[in-house]
Amino acid sequence: MRFHTRKWIKPQDLNPNGTLFGGRLLEWIDEEAALYAIIQLENPRTVTKFMSEIDFKSSAREGDIIEIGMDVVKFGKASLTLRCEVRNKMNRQVIISIERIVMVCLDEEGKAKPHGKTQIEYVKDRLKE
Amino acid sequence: MRFHTRKWIKPQDLNPNGTLFGGRLLEWIDEEAALYAIIQLENPRTVTKFMSEIDFKSSAREGDIIEIGMDVVKFGKASLTLRCEVRNKMNRQVIISIERIVMVCLDEEGKAKPHGKTQIEYVKDRLKE
Amino acid sequence: MRFHTRKWIKPQDLNPNGTLFGGRLLEWIDEEAALYAIIQLENPRTVTKFMSEIDFKSSAREGDIIEIGMDVVKFGKASLTLRCEVRNKMNRQVIISIERIVMVCLDEEGKAKPHGKTQIEYVKDRLKE
Amino acid sequence: MRFHTRKWIKPQDLNPNGTLFGGRLLEWIDEEAALYAIIQLENPRTVTKFMSEIDFKSSAREGDIIEIGMDVVKFGKASLTLRCEVRNKMNRQVIISIERIVMVCLDEEGKAKPHGKTQIEYVKDRLKE
Amino acid sequence: MRFHTRKWIKPQDLNPNGTLFGGRLLEWIDEEAALYAIIQLENPRTVTKFMSEIDFKSSAREGDIIEIGMDVVKFGKASLTLRCEVRNKMNRQVIISIERIVMVCLDEEGKAKPHGKTQIEYVKDRLKE
Amino acid sequence: MRFHTRKWIKPQDLNPNGTLFGGRLLEWIDEEAALYAIIQLENPRTVTKFMSEIDFKSSAREGDIIEIGMDVVKFGKASLTLRCEVRNKMNRQVIISIERIVMVCLDEEGKAKPHGKTQIEYVKDRLKE
Repeated sequence: MRFHTRKWIKPQDLNPNGTLFGGRLLEWIDEEAALYAIIQLENPRTVTKFMSEIDFKSSAREGDIIEIGMDVVKFGKASLTLRCEVRNKMNRQVIISIERIVMVCLDEEGKAKPHGKTQIEYVKDRLKE
Repeated sequence: MRFHTRKWIKPQDLNPNGTLFGGRLLEWIDEEAALYAIIQLENPRTVTKFMSEIDFKSSAREGDIIEIGMDVVKFGKASLTLRCEVRNKMNRQVIISIERIVMVCLDEEGKAKPHGKTQIEYVKDRLKE
Repeated sequence: MRFHTRKWIKPQDLNPNGTLFGGRLLEWIDEEAALYAIIQLENPRTVTKFMSEIDFKSSAREGDIIEIGMDVVKFGKASLTLRCEVRNKMNRQVIISIERIVMVCLDEEGKAKPHGKTQIEYVKDRLKE
Repeated sequence: MRFHTRKWIKPQDLNPNGTLFGGRLLEWIDEEAALYAIIQLENPRTVTKFMSEIDFKSSAREGDIIEIGMDVVKFGKASLTLRCEVRNKMNRQVIISIERIVMVCLDEEGKAKPHGKTQIEYVKDRLKE
Repeated sequence: MRFHTRKWIKPQDLNPNGTLFGGRLLEWIDEEAALYAIIQLENPRTVTKFMSEIDFKSSAREGDIIEIGMDVVKFGKASLTLRCEVRNKMNRQVIISIERIVMVCLDEEGKAKPHGKTQIEYVKDRLKE
Repeated sequence: MRFHTRKWIKPQDLNPNGTLFGGRLLEWIDEEAALYAIIQLENPRTVTKFMSEIDFKSSAREGDIIEIGMDVVKFGKASLTLRCEVRNKMNRQVIISIERIVMVCLDEEGKAKPHGKTQIEYVKDRLKE
């Protein structure tokens, strides 16, 4: 699993109990899944279709730095299934994990559209061509 | 299921494709689950512990009005399990549904704490006493 | 008066004195009035035209849950006059009340447009037809 | 009336009809009234207590620049009454006006506290002393 | 230098150490530079092209009121160079200063476009004509 | 240079001309610099002290994905100097570059405090010990 995006937990990300607001974390994960899928599928019209069970394993506090990891589980015909893990950057404690996030590639009318991809690609390799 | 909170979808709630950003919707649901549980359990230290599968059934667009519904599935010892459905207010089309959201009641040290509740209560009845 | 939307007061909603920022509350009320009027008038081009005196009766603090109530005062030709009350969900203490909020229905050029409504309707009844 | 703070209307400030969201405007006005009163009364514990009728005279669109003006109506014992006008910076068209915004000075327990001020002061004069 | 826009530092503007988040301050400065340049150049398509060194001289805390000052350094052919200073409103301590912010006037295709201005103008004088 | 954090440009990140708002980009860079420095220096009280010239080389549009890169220029006694580059993830076009961002390590009273670090460390190596 590759961890890219990092977040610094600021007052605006807290719930009234002073820990990371779960809704903010889900928002961050959804954005990361979307952009990861767009990079892989090379189609900006890619949307979240499904998330499997979400287990809030531990919390985070103001000032903590977290990192969001994504991994590919499966390339479908018009979909991409990802696995996600969010952890504390400093001690690697897992905060949340989601086994499957299904992203779907859409055409202009909003219908599922085959993306033709079957494996992870790196932008640097694409640009070499 | 009771639908309380309503949202008017504004530009700041959209993804770059012009539909409701999934992350924003999850943020709204998490807040609604938290406050519903706090009202029922009468403990402000109530946090999201688990969400079952999330199915994004349909989308919403700028200007749409949606409403968020919550229902109690089960009162545990220190937990409350909710069911959630979000739908378009004008045509009742379901946007998202989550079968189980488990909220847990915590004590001052952040440990699970029995809440002593076994059924839905209404604030108006509590205030009568 | 019917109370629908609820808000959980989070750090981002506070003023520097640690109480609910009045500007945030007015923002929430304006959104609720707009969506209430849109639902009743079935016209998304409905805007706030006027608010009568606003009395900040009591404040709210971080972690409080508030609910926003709306009631119809009068159906005008192109307008709808609402009454609003915001109260603390747990103890029903009134936080703010506004006697008249006038919402106006617009046509495509932004001119007042008769809406043809004379009484409160429920979406469930509309959908039955 | 003195116009200080200016805002550039961005996508996040719009309602779904593409004009300035009234709630955002009220939020900006409340902040400006608060900081104006704090500067005059030299007490950071100053809160909004009352606003007189609000007339939304014209709207504003994305990209417009608006300016917020405040003027003192009256120095009370523990209060300060302001008048507010918001206008389009480029053509001076009035967007909203509020005849009276009553700000109240509080002590540490949240009770009204005399501020001892009777006229407008300028920070530059205070610093000269 | 003229100081117009004022900000009241609220919890959402803080970093996790409880002082003003530098990124928020830069956001405010960029908005002020943009709207100042748009007012002077009378072209809404004006963008930030360059900022010279930024020195964070002192910090600000929750509840502080700051004011943002702008001054014209030079009118270029298609550009406007500004100088910016942000200071604490109550004691005039400088928080940040930027010697040169270069704003560029664009045409519809995003290319630099001469603006024809050579000196500061006031909106009130323009409206007199 | 290592690129970690990625952002998906959404409507709330745009200026009224429909391109990425420069102020938002500066906010993102400042957060990334802060968390990068905190990770390296292992001190959460690390603040931005200085940024060298900022050149806005190209813009970004709604739906673009950008990535923020940081590199260490120099370890000072109480400071860490970083270099930053933001680029479009899909085509690697540079959007902004900043040669030096000086972050300073503070003690509890807000005074510069030696951090004792002289080279880049990786969290995985720290955790092995």
